[in-house]
Amino acid sequence: MQQYTVTFLPAGLNLTVTAGSSVLTAAAQAGLALKSSCGGSGTCGQCIIKVVSGQVQLTGGNLAAQLKQQGYTLACQTLIYGDVVLEIPATSLLAEHRVFVADKGRLPDSLTELPAEYPLQPVCETVSLKLPEPSLTENACDMDRLLTNLQRQKGLKAEVGLQLLQNLPQTLRDSNWQVEVTYETEVNRILRIAAAGSSRSYGLAIDLGTTTVVASLLDLSNGIRVARKGTYNRQAAYGDDLISRVIHACETNDGLDALRQSALTTINGLIEDLLVEVKVAPAEVVAATIAGNTIMIHLLLGISPKFIRLQPYIPAAAEWPPMNANEVGLNINPLAPVYIFPAVASYVGGDIVAGVIFSQMAQNEHLNLFIDIGTNGEMVLGNDEWLIACACSAGPAFEGSGISNGMRAMSGAIEAVNIDPQTNTIELEVIGGGAPAGICGSGLIDCLAKLRRTGVIDRSGNFIATDNPRVRPNDEGYEFVLTPASESKTGQDIVITSADIKTLIRSKGAVYAGIQSLLKTVSLELDAIDKIIIAGGFGNYLNIANAVEIGLLPDLPPEKFVFAGNAALKGAELALLSRPAWQQALELARKITYLELSSGNLFMEEFVAALFLPHTRLELFPSLVDAKSNGHRQEN
Amino acid sequence: MQQYTVTFLPAGLNLTVTAGSSVLTAAAQAGLALKSSCGGSGTCGQCIIKVVSGQVQLTGGNLAAQLKQQGYTLACQTLIYGDVVLEIPATSLLAEHRVFVADKGRLPDSLTELPAEYPLQPVCETVSLKLPEPSLTENACDMDRLLTNLQRQKGLKAEVGLQLLQNLPQTLRDSNWQVEVTYETEVNRILRIAAAGSSRSYGLAIDLGTTTVVASLLDLSNGIRVARKGTYNRQAAYGDDLISRVIHACETNDGLDALRQSALTTINGLIEDLLVEVKVAPAEVVAATIAGNTIMIHLLLGISPKFIRLQPYIPAAAEWPPMNANEVGLNINPLAPVYIFPAVASYVGGDIVAGVIFSQMAQNEHLNLFIDIGTNGEMVLGNDEWLIACACSAGPAFEGSGISNGMRAMSGAIEAVNIDPQTNTIELEVIGGGAPAGICGSGLIDCLAKLRRTGVIDRSGNFIATDNPRVRPNDEGYEFVLTPASESKTGQDIVITSADIKTLIRSKGAVYAGIQSLLKTVSLELDAIDKIIIAGGFGNYLNIANAVEIGLLPDLPPEKFVFAGNAALKGAELALLSRPAWQQALELARKITYLELSSGNLFMEEFVAALFLPHTRLELFPSLVDAKSNGHRQEN
Repeated sequence: MQQYTVTFLPAGLNLTVTAGSSVLTAAAQAGLALKSSCGGSGTCGQCIIKVVSGQVQLTGGNLAAQLKQQGYTLACQTLIYGDVVLEIPATSLLAEHRVFVADKGRLPDSLTELPAEYPLQPVCETVSLKLPEPSLTENACDMDRLLTNLQRQKGLKAEVGLQLLQNLPQTLRDSNWQVEVTYETEVNRILRIAAAGSSRSYGLAIDLGTTTVVASLLDLSNGIRVARKGTYNRQAAYGDDLISRVIHACETNDGLDALRQSALTTINGLIEDLLVEVKVAPAEVVAATIAGNTIMIHLLLGISPKFIRLQPYIPAAAEWPPMNANEVGLNINPLAPVYIFPAVASYVGGDIVAGVIFSQMAQNEHLNLFIDIGTNGEMVLGNDEWLIACACSAGPAFEGSGISNGMRAMSGAIEAVNIDPQTNTIELEVIGGGAPAGICGSGLIDCLAKLRRTGVIDRSGNFIATDNPRVRPNDEGYEFVLTPASESKTGQDIVITSADIKTLIRSKGAVYAGIQSLLKTVSLELDAIDKIIIAGGFGNYLNIANAVEIGLLPDLPPEKFVFAGNAALKGAELALLSRPAWQQALELARKITYLELSSGNLFMEEFVAALFLPHTRLELFPSLVDAKSNGHRQEN
Repeated sequence: MQQYTVTFLPAGLNLTVTAGSSVLTAAAQAGLALKSSCGGSGTCGQCIIKVVSGQVQLTGGNLAAQLKQQGYTLACQTLIYGDVVLEIPATSLLAEHRVFVADKGRLPDSLTELPAEYPLQPVCETVSLKLPEPSLTENACDMDRLLTNLQRQKGLKAEVGLQLLQNLPQTLRDSNWQVEVTYETEVNRILRIAAAGSSRSYGLAIDLGTTTVVASLLDLSNGIRVARKGTYNRQAAYGDDLISRVIHACETNDGLDALRQSALTTINGLIEDLLVEVKVAPAEVVAATIAGNTIMIHLLLGISPKFIRLQPYIPAAAEWPPMNANEVGLNINPLAPVYIFPAVASYVGGDIVAGVIFSQMAQNEHLNLFIDIGTNGEMVLGNDEWLIACACSAGPAFEGSGISNGMRAMSGAIEAVNIDPQTNTIELEVIGGGAPAGICGSGLIDCLAKLRRTGVIDRSGNFIATDNPRVRPNDEGYEFVLTPASESKTGQDIVITSADIKTLIRSKGAVYAGIQSLLKTVSLELDAIDKIIIAGGFGNYLNIANAVEIGLLPDLPPEKFVFAGNAALKGAELALLSRPAWQQALELARKITYLELSSGNLFMEEFVAALFLPHTRLELFPSLVDAKSNGHRQEN
């Protein structure tokens, strides 16, 4: 097939593509991750580029007329039919996400002090051995000599595979028969044999999120986290949301492999950065744990997620077989065991199990509610006797997706909104300062609360203050202008529309309905909850009072809310350092009862009732009613 | 580095090599296996080629002046320094060896009837399963569905790895939930999941010999051998004998890899031939067993044999860890388990253990002696209570190596010699008929017996009938002309020299001394032996009476000798078909006592005493003394 050369400016990257390739695909191949929430269907209008020279064919897509006039096109709708030179505006590139290094809340960020339930018993341990030298009369083979002495000196009955055996004779003699043996505990599989004193042991914990991927490196000898890094998931080039990626994986030639490689490139990029920073060699990373949702894990392992998407929504596996880094594709010690957190169900994945491990709610006699508000809104309710989980389709609105000017919590995002009811002036807080480019989840919640509080919208989310100078009609109703084009980074108005508000209400309603569904299933009331543990990056920036005010979270005393930060990552760290934690993850995944919300009417009734601000049944939000009757509300 | 094009005639093969490569190496890369007993050191004079055109550099080597004048050179001594065209005479190519399909002796060739001790319990078995279809209420993941039903319906608690998991969802649905699961018994590792009725299961048994490699394919469902093929070991390009190959592996860049690849090319060539012949797909071959000596196995697995060669002669392993075909490099089902027979010691390898399994001597209350006369002369003595083994360095003389006109048992080899004492005329039997090209092991034994019987040589092997017209002096003593140049295939005289006779006496003496050493160690006499089981290809063509006459084998009644044929291969076949046989192989390797002949004086005393024809102590050979006194000898 005809091949053409593509040059990307300003980076100056070159690559060769086949005729008819889209610029979006070519950019991904060149390692340039463009914003593309819709996954290349032409609807999100984010992958804006400019054709400098060369022959292309444009197929359409959702792009403002003004931008078209300025010569911009959408990368996903621009097909290459000649040698081309393309310009990629910086605003079209996915930027680094904020990584959640400093966590709020009661749960310890530092793992130097492990909880009593999870003592320091790393999944891989190292022992030193002095072997007797062979002689004509004591002529056992090298493997027997090693294994016999391992058993005799350390009481360890272990196994060695072919890969290590190939180097064993030379290693034993080079080390003068004084070696260190690193092995996977529980199964006693040897994964490294080295000269005594030559090897350090690190573990890698990975939170493989749909949006962001965070990895940390821990010293297995003392449990200290030596480095942590995060980045966006490069799979975003195939769509912000899971469904776009599943469609790409299942319906495109080599789509599954492309998504697998994107995940691996993301993780291996983090690994390289981590290892360079702390001067650790790949061979010294002898174990890894991965927490991710079920679809992310399928994609990482090259397993088609096709049947998770189709009724009756069956994943290939919930608990994953033993694997090593070589099989998975991680650039660490190829024999390092990789522990992937088991899932409770298709839509309550290993990331939730890891979070529950970290929360220790399964060791707590009091009732805890664990919530991770991301695309799905997964939650687990329970104590040391029972646990029940569900996933409500909250949608990615709180991640900024599907909202007119929504964006992720990154530089340029509005994260807080204040509206002066007297002057109608607006104060915005923008991540990183400067002019805003859009609005992220915490900003949206804040905005919704303030629009309702100042009477711009009613309890159903309809615009009522249509005479407000910031409110103006649009094609589908009204919109509220947060930032005029003249003051924004993008040169376009930043608005929140009637449609955006409906989307946000559906999202918050789904979360609230999920909580109520869990409680009703176990015949308990809201006040039975001792703590609500809020996990995930989004939780870090959430204003609880605002979230209660819009009816996203239940109306409980503020002291009952705690932030767990990136609980999935911390659970993954715990599992590396403490085999009992990993064992408990396996047990919990089997023990947690899964409540399927799509069967029966329970959830749907709760959902419909929650499609108001804050809720149809105001008695569920007594503090809001009290505040109103008292004529004041606690400010954020 | 400068690259040149090499063209081999008459095959017309082309390849590119770097300047300074030897023609021997280039030929091996092109897949042309030249004779090269010495492994390329220039001493054996076998890799004869002709440079048709192009620039080469000649470094020397042992080549007859006559051949040099005719324009021939040695491939190992011809270095390429330009684009060259080379001619390879057919006589320089390794030909196919005879493969031992029809075996003599009491032990069954057919495995359709297995011995009672080894019932048909293949190492891999297949079960059929009907799985319930998933639903919204019965929504276990695919892997759990499979494993739960395997346990429920078949009582089998098994495991699935990542590779199978990747295709599991599609396989289950394509097969409409009716599948066949093939698993490795004992460890219950699943290696194939297929639609019901779509899969057959075969096993591959391999005898990986230094000289020849033989493989057979067995139907695991009924134990029937469906095909068997053999060929020469392509490692011969690096030397006939093990030591040349060890040196190449240890002292040449990438030498170990070259030897590994040669072994794999040999085996995979056999596999391809076998599978094409009986129309079996690689994926249908679900298990393999390999019997080979310790060094051959090291080379096959890419493990340097360096330390086996150096005192105290330590191999990397005696019992091999679990491996699959993918790791080993066999072109069968990549997840097929590969069982490599464990060794007793460095020089009593898995091939001997496999042979002992087949002989069933470990289940026999009577005393058996198992002998494999190859390069080493390994032997095992014992019964159902104890077993003792040794390896005497017999050298490769009986394989034709190190003998002036020695060759392997292949087309053109003299395999029997008759000398009429009256007329001094000679009758020769040549493998495949026609003019002889050399003499193989059975021919050498025959020749030695006849030279002694007709009084051409004395009991020490010295030529005494120097007036015999066929005897003539040479540089180092005398030589006996078997075939004059005018009647030979090579156009050169075929002779047996004083030096050859000394070599043969040392070889036969080592074997006999080994037998005596074993007996003395356990304080038994020759007549305690109930059967002598002769294994190996060489045994197939051996004339027992001649072997006794030269003192290679002990003087026992002919009915005590039995031929086991290729016992290593048959043991490997048994292990495929019957897990108890494989289990016993593991036990035997640990149970057999190894007698190290190089320590102590026992062997050396016996060896020196055996350096006569038939022996210093004639009382050990009463039948020969009787025959002489009776004035006649049984003819062969």
